[in-house]
Amino acid sequence: MVPETVAWTGDSLRVLDQRALPEEIVFLECRSVADVAEAICTLAVRGAPAIGIAAAYGVVIGARADRRNLENFIYQLAATRPTAVNLFWALGRMRAVAEREAEEPDDIFLSRLLFEAGSIHHEDVAGNKRMGSFGAALLPQQATILTHCNAGALATGGHGTALGILRSAREAGKEIVKVYADETRPLLQGARLTAWELAEDGFDVTVICDSMAGYLMGKQKIDAVIVGADRIAANGDAANKIGTYGLAVLAAYHKIPFYIAAPESTFDRSLSEGCEIPIEERGAEEVRLLPGGKRVPEAISVWNPAFDVTPAALIAAIVTENGVYRPPYDFSK
Amino acid sequence: MVPETVAWTGDSLRVLDQRALPEEIVFLECRSVADVAEAICTLAVRGAPAIGIAAAYGVVIGARADRRNLENFIYQLAATRPTAVNLFWALGRMRAVAEREAEEPDDIFLSRLLFEAGSIHHEDVAGNKRMGSFGAALLPQQATILTHCNAGALATGGHGTALGILRSAREAGKEIVKVYADETRPLLQGARLTAWELAEDGFDVTVICDSMAGYLMGKQKIDAVIVGADRIAANGDAANKIGTYGLAVLAAYHKIPFYIAAPESTFDRSLSEGCEIPIEERGAEEVRLLPGGKRVPEAISVWNPAFDVTPAALIAAIVTENGVYRPPYDFSK
Repeated sequence: MVPETVAWTGDSLRVLDQRALPEEIVFLECRSVADVAEAICTLAVRGAPAIGIAAAYGVVIGARADRRNLENFIYQLAATRPTAVNLFWALGRMRAVAEREAEEPDDIFLSRLLFEAGSIHHEDVAGNKRMGSFGAALLPQQATILTHCNAGALATGGHGTALGILRSAREAGKEIVKVYADETRPLLQGARLTAWELAEDGFDVTVICDSMAGYLMGKQKIDAVIVGADRIAANGDAANKIGTYGLAVLAAYHKIPFYIAAPESTFDRSLSEGCEIPIEERGAEEVRLLPGGKRVPEAISVWNPAFDVTPAALIAAIVTENGVYRPPYDFSK
Repeated sequence: MVPETVAWTGDSLRVLDQRALPEEIVFLECRSVADVAEAICTLAVRGAPAIGIAAAYGVVIGARADRRNLENFIYQLAATRPTAVNLFWALGRMRAVAEREAEEPDDIFLSRLLFEAGSIHHEDVAGNKRMGSFGAALLPQQATILTHCNAGALATGGHGTALGILRSAREAGKEIVKVYADETRPLLQGARLTAWELAEDGFDVTVICDSMAGYLMGKQKIDAVIVGADRIAANGDAANKIGTYGLAVLAAYHKIPFYIAAPESTFDRSLSEGCEIPIEERGAEEVRLLPGGKRVPEAISVWNPAFDVTPAALIAAIVTENGVYRPPYDFSK
């Protein structure tokens, strides 16, 4: 069983610390906005939908501490990570409730905020299950799938986006013959998280290095590549974990359908193209750290973009909780 | 200064242990055929040309121990690694000398074998310098280059193939603005070896994770991708370190010339197409070992092909010591 990524305990946010997986199942108790912000910054909680949910509960924690300071708390949570738009979407929903209920006494104000955060959380799970059904219909009766990073239960309120499609397909009687999981350097969300959560649920999963995906596609029949997304521009260009773009080019070259699975909250209708999406560059240390305790020496430069943008032309379909979008995409309205 | 990868000491083969780089410069003394075979199997010495040279000296070591057993020694050395054809080419040259000189007394027989091994070694260095001149002419006056794995001095008798082109270009007055080195999971020959040897020689080198190459090509002007090869079929299909194929697809998508640099000994004229090249699959442990001491759990499958094959159609030119070949390739004669 995959534990809940985030859970409201009644007066704190309990976060499954994904940095410790799969070796250890460790939970963090976030009791302050700073705790929540740190959990997001350090990737204890990661995955675009999960970040949004955690931030929403972070607003509740902030309001309980000092509701007059709420705008600063929202700012602090928004400053954690730049690429996933679900973060700003969730904070926007929380801000709207805070403004609407601004005249209410503390107890009602807080309960309205908690209700909204809970709604964001539970709508995500329900949405993923609908998304899963829509996506499952795209797969053949027996499917071998390649995925990148982790767009699973761990990255969401539960069930998952890309991996939710696999769960739903299996529930619908389709056979997921095998899932190949890119290890996803530098932080190995594929090798550590996707492989673990799929194995926990009884899927046959094989880890490969990111560089092996092309050879795999040429050698073994892959029915679909399915990944998540962190932000999707109005024209369908999609930012996701670094490496996604290369995988999409390889899928096109091999005529393998490349699917994005993401909730509607991932759409950023204000951006016309993917090149406008801010791409987080993270610390060099993540790349310098090599297996076996080895390191890239400090004298050598390192570059560590955390995301890339896949052009809409390479995306066969975008699956959301509302259905399956096909090109040409237009999410401007 | 980059130390010599292999050197004949007079009665043993001194091998730079590339597993210890860049943290430590450690040399192994190979005094038996088993020592040489182990150095090749365990990647203490690696790189198609360097493997061939080491194996040639291994034959000398074997002949000194027991010339009657030479065929077994050659068999033992040939069984170390399956993909790089330079190994079999070098052993073939040594066998031919042994057969030609079979009637000679020990001292002459041994000196002829040693001369042949030394010739293979020194021809490789001289060939790389000629290859470097031919390849340098392909580059613009100011060049930013992406490479994969290590096709440098460390992989050869000296100077290098792909990296030799960069050295020659600089000697010819061209500016190598920057070299991006794919880290090259699982064994990180890019992060550990290419970055180190280029930095030692004063190049500006930046390490990226393999999955970042696509994003890099889209964002930054890359003038050429240059890699080595382990075996090239008659039609130009080229086996090289896993990930090379994906990089070639990405280069084609971005209209970046993709060059292979390899000595003529890399051609396998007996194979009409790349699909006939045997691809080594190595132990899962290499992939399981993750940064920070983490591991992919044993319960989860891992796949570890060490090489892939890049179709000739994606290769803009193949540079050898004899010149620059352009498509359509025909190495059948």
